[in-house]
Formats: sequence, structure tokens, C-alpha cells
Amino acid sequence: MSFQEAYLAECRALVLDELRAIVRAAGSDERAYSTLLDYPLRRAKGLRPALCIAVARALGGALEDVLPSATVLEIYHNAFLIHDDIEDGSLERRGAPALHQTHGVPAAVNCGDGLLALTLRPLLDNTERLGLGRALRVLEIYSAMVVETYEGQAQELRWIEDGAWDLSDTDYEDMVQRKTCSYSFVAPARVGAAVAGAPHDVEHRLVPFFRRLGLAFQIQDDLLNLERGRDGYGKELAGDLWEGKRTLMLLHALRTAPAGDRDRALAILARPRPSRRSTELDLVLAEVQAAGHLDRTGAEAIALRFRRGGAAEKTTDDVAFLLGLVEAHGGVPHARAIARGHAAAAEAEWVRIEDLLGSSVHTRFLHWLKDYVVHREW
Amino acid sequence: MSFQEAYLAECRALVLDELRAIVRAAGSDERAYSTLLDYPLRRAKGLRPALCIAVARALGGALEDVLPSATVLEIYHNAFLIHDDIEDGSLERRGAPALHQTHGVPAAVNCGDGLLALTLRPLLDNTERLGLGRALRVLEIYSAMVVETYEGQAQELRWIEDGAWDLSDTDYEDMVQRKTCSYSFVAPARVGAAVAGAPHDVEHRLVPFFRRLGLAFQIQDDLLNLERGRDGYGKELAGDLWEGKRTLMLLHALRTAPAGDRDRALAILARPRPSRRSTELDLVLAEVQAAGHLDRTGAEAIALRFRRGGAAEKTTDDVAFLLGLVEAHGGVPHARAIARGHAAAAEAEWVRIEDLLGSSVHTRFLHWLKDYVVHREW
Repeated sequence: MSFQEAYLAECRALVLDELRAIVRAAGSDERAYSTLLDYPLRRAKGLRPALCIAVARALGGALEDVLPSATVLEIYHNAFLIHDDIEDGSLERRGAPALHQTHGVPAAVNCGDGLLALTLRPLLDNTERLGLGRALRVLEIYSAMVVETYEGQAQELRWIEDGAWDLSDTDYEDMVQRKTCSYSFVAPARVGAAVAGAPHDVEHRLVPFFRRLGLAFQIQDDLLNLERGRDGYGKELAGDLWEGKRTLMLLHALRTAPAGDRDRALAILARPRPSRRSTELDLVLAEVQAAGHLDRTGAEAIALRFRRGGAAEKTTDDVAFLLGLVEAHGGVPHARAIARGHAAAAEAEWVRIEDLLGSSVHTRFLHWLKDYVVHREW
Repeated sequence: MSFQEAYLAECRALVLDELRAIVRAAGSDERAYSTLLDYPLRRAKGLRPALCIAVARALGGALEDVLPSATVLEIYHNAFLIHDDIEDGSLERRGAPALHQTHGVPAAVNCGDGLLALTLRPLLDNTERLGLGRALRVLEIYSAMVVETYEGQAQELRWIEDGAWDLSDTDYEDMVQRKTCSYSFVAPARVGAAVAGAPHDVEHRLVPFFRRLGLAFQIQDDLLNLERGRDGYGKELAGDLWEGKRTLMLLHALRTAPAGDRDRALAILARPRPSRRSTELDLVLAEVQAAGHLDRTGAEAIALRFRRGGAAEKTTDDVAFLLGLVEAHGGVPHARAIARGHAAAAEAEWVRIEDLLGSSVHTRFLHWLKDYVVHREW
């Protein structure tokens, strides 16, 4: 195990203990809280709290002072994942069925809300632990972070709804800064600095480095998602293409493809991903056909009537076309180059903040992140 | 328009202005925020913020001091409704399609999260408006409130999942205190008192009155839901019975019915409400039958295979049976008597707090609520 993996593992163990303590303190209703712990206890790296802890400690903060706030960031992340999985209709998360698959959408929506509800108590308890000034600073950062995350998510969903394609890489990065960078990198670093009582200008000087990390991290996430699509396992993979997410790769392909191909791609993107409804319909009709009650023409006629006015949905061939377009127009190397550019820019930013952070194991961990975000495999 | 209706209307107009200001201050992304305003701008009474404003002003607080916190309660309520409508699969809300029906589940889940995200900024701004002490008190109340609401919702969902029936009226009331009383009555009153800078003991002495109001309010809500089921319009009505909610009426019937009837009722309650999946399946199979490709036996065989191991769902007859059981065993008068008991107890509690509240239009409004909660028609 590398030093960095050990650092992550140690932080994660501390965060999970803290999380259990927060849950215990919240209420005596054990069963209500066991579901809340489901996602947090699954295999995960715990990047956000580790980053927050490392910044706080590098700046001279005490572990026990930062742990509750770092844990709140992990709680928020898990609430985000539960709701995101419902939004994306995901089947799996961290190697097990998504929460709404095992507990149903109602319990899963409520569970995400329950995790969000748990974030406030530790942040208010910070007033006694850190004093009013630092506690309020952390609350301010947290408050702005949740609003930004909402905006980023809303922007991404709206581009899909609007069929947007004429977007620059900067548009994409602006969305990602709000959707991912904020709650995954920038806010954890700022919370760490605030907990440590660093001067405001130190807190703000950290931002560019972590923003670069966040951008590189999300682009790598998008690349990994697409990569998994190449194996051709169908609907469950290349999920971003099925969902029509406006990634750098897709936007690059749409901008550079000949008009005819672009139009075809846009027509595909305008189609919804197959709903459960229509997957069921296909299964039922296949069954009826197999039992010899219906021929193919009959099945298609019925299928057409049930697909609200025949509105088509994306097919495997459609997604293969999108994937081909991305590859033909160099979407992957384009995005990879941008991610590496952010990692390189992060290195340049590092020079400006390493003196602030001093030299410690925590600082070494933070420096390592700039390679990790572009080289990670999951 | 009665004096109380005018009071509600006036508060509501102020709250909506404040809400628009909060949304404007949050970000420049107008379209992200127009969806957030959808539910709040629909026809509604605005009971929670009006109650909060009335308590604050009765206790000598200034309108401008309480308005942001009162608006936060209304924002929270709307976030709760959006997520609750997804959880219950509701079609309508306040006379228009539910948000997830018009914008889809992904945008609706995110919209609820966006409203929740907006609640923190005004509560943090309270530090400048009210001073640290009062601002933190409001945050404490809010934090405990969101946790309680989660617990109440989780409890209700779990009773359904567990097929619970051997529950006392007190069990029901304990759940309702967390699910509804807390965020709809008790917390708004406490926030009003905290904003006005009332001594802690005054804040706590208000609680019993408002808890009684909350209990009566929810029981009346349950009665209205059942009432609408009597018209026999089917699945969309008596929604609580379709969902298997453990109301006072249902619990009373389950406790007093002969064992045979109870067993039948429990068997019905153990069945899920018809899913969209199975409604679709029935439609498809009916179509195939109508086209002459399949006979009834064949259709049933296929339907059985698709209903995971043939697990039955509730039918209209099932729900009619539950409704009949509730009526036969006096579930409605039982619940109505309990609601009236809470209203009477509220009147008794009133005597203990009216001196604290003094005599003003705000106090008169609050006193009126004890009749309103049991006599309201919507």
C-alpha cells in the first residue's frame, strides 16, 4: 500500500467512526439510521474528507477540530450520490445495487434528505469546538457549496433537455466547477483552511489549485465512463452517452463533425434513453411472440402505439454511432489533453501555495492528488 | 374575506416577495431558479410562515426580522412537498401536475435539493440582522426540525414496509409529531419566539399548544384524504389506503375488526399499490388480446411471469374492502374524536400562553388556528 493509500485509509476509518457517532447522537431510532449508513459504509476512497483533513492539518489545525466538518462533507457526498443515482436511474453504486433499487425510490429520496439533515448538527457544534468566527466561516462555505452544486446539476440537466450542442469547453468547465469542483475539491480545501483558522487570503489562495484538480478529476471521470462504453456491454455502460451528458468529448465531436453527422447525432441525443416502461414493453412483446401468439409486425404495431405517438428512444446502435463519432473526431485525446493541461496548471499553482502549506505528510498527500486525478482508474 | 384569511394572504404576499429576493440573491442563473419557484407560487395558504410571523410579532418581534426565517420554513415545506410527491407517485399538487410529472424525476429531485440549499443563506444572514445569539438559536431549531422530519417520514415508510398493525394511537401520534407537527407547527412557533428574543422558557411553553394543533391538523388531513376516497374515483383518491399509510382510522379498524377481516386487510396492505410497470403490462396485454393474438388464459400466464413470482398488487376492490372495514368499525368517528380532543386540549393550553402572547391581531390569528385545524376543508 502506497503512503497515499494509507493516508486515505486512515482518514476514512476516522471519518466512519465520526459518522457513526453523529448518527448515534441524532436519534435512538436505530433502523431509521441503518439505511443512512448503507452508502457511506460501502467501499470508497473518502477523497473529500481526506483532502479537507490534509489541508487543515498542513495549516496547523488539529485533527479533532476538522474531523466533524470533514465528515459532513462525506455525508453530503453520499446524499448527493443517492439522489444522483435516482436521477440517472442507476442500477449500481460501489459494487452493490443502488439504494433506490433495494429500498425503493421513496425510501431512497428520504434517505438522501436524512443525510442532508444530519449535516447541520456537527456544523453548529463547531461553535463550541472552534469558536463562533471559524464555525460561521465553515457554515458560509458549506451554504455556498450546496447552492453551487444545485446550479451545476441544474445546468447539466438543462443542456440535455434543451438539446444544447454549441457549447465551448469553457461552458463545460463552468458547469463542472459548480457541479463537482465546488463540493469535491474547493469547498473541502476551504473548510480545512477555515477550521485551521488560516487568514482569509490563505483560504482564497488555495482555490485555483483545487479548482484545477476538480476539473481534471471530472474530465477523467467522464473519460472512464466512456472507456467502459467501448467494451460494448450496452445500456449499462457509457451511461453518459445514454443520458446525453455534454462532456468535452461529445461537445468536441459535435463541433467538428460534418453537418450531416452532427444533425444525426443531435437527433439521437434528442431521444430519451429507453425508459423502464419501454424495456418492459419489449420484454412482454418478446414473450408474447415467443409463445407464438404474435408475429414481428404485430408486435411492432403494438409497440408503436405504446410509445406515446411513436417517439423513438435511443438504441444501442444510436449510442454506438455517438461513440464512433467521438472517436472519429478525436474527442478522447482532446479531453485527455485538457485534463492534463489542468494537472499541469495545478502543478504551476502548487508553487504558489506550497510555502503556505509547509512541509508535512499532509502536504505531500495534497501534492500527490494532482497526479492521482488524471491517472486514477476508478 | 375573514380577518384570518386576510392575515394569511398578507403574510403570503410578503413571504413570496422575500422568496423572490432570496432566489435573486442566490445566483444569476435565472432558468435554474424559475423551476424552484414553481411549487411556491402555486395557490397555497402559507400557514407555516404566517404562524411564525404571528408568534414573533405577538412577542414583540419586528416583521422584517422574522420574514427571512419564516420564508425559509416555506421553502423547506415546498422542498418537502416536491420530494414527498415523488415518493408517493403523486400526479397533482395544488391543482396542477406534480413537478416530477412535468419536469421528470431527475429535475424534481434536484429541485427539492435546490430549495433545501437555499435555506441556509437567510439563516446565516440572521447573524447580522438578529445578532449571533438569536441567529444560532434559529439554526439550532431548524437543524433539529429537519432531522425529526426525516425520522417521522422514515417511521411511516417503515411501518408500511413491515406490515405493522399492532400500533397504538400514541405510536401514530409520536410519528406525526416528528413528520408533521415539528416542521409545520412547533418549529415555526419556536423560530418566531427565538427571532423575537423571547426567553427560552417562553419558547418552550409555547410548544404544547402548537403540538396539539399539529396533531389535529394531520388527523384532519388524513380524514380529508379518506373522505375523497368515498366518492369512488379509484386509485388517485384515498391515496393513503393505496399507500398503506397507518392512519388512526386504519389502525382502529385493524385493532377492532374480527381476526378474519383483519387478516384479509393485512394481506391487502402487504400488497404494493399497482406500479406503473404493472399498469403498463395490463394495457399491453389487453391490446394484444383485443387484436386477437392472445386469449385470457395466455395473457394471465404472461402477466404472472412478469409480476416477479406472481406477487399480487392492491386492486380497487381491495381498497374498497379497507374503506368498508374502516367505516364498519367506526374508524372515522374515532379519529375525528381524537382530533377534536387535541383541539380542546389546545384550547386548555391556550390559557397558559395567552398572557405571554399579549393581545394583538397576531394573537387573535394564532387562537383562531385551533378551530381552523379541525374544520378546514383543504
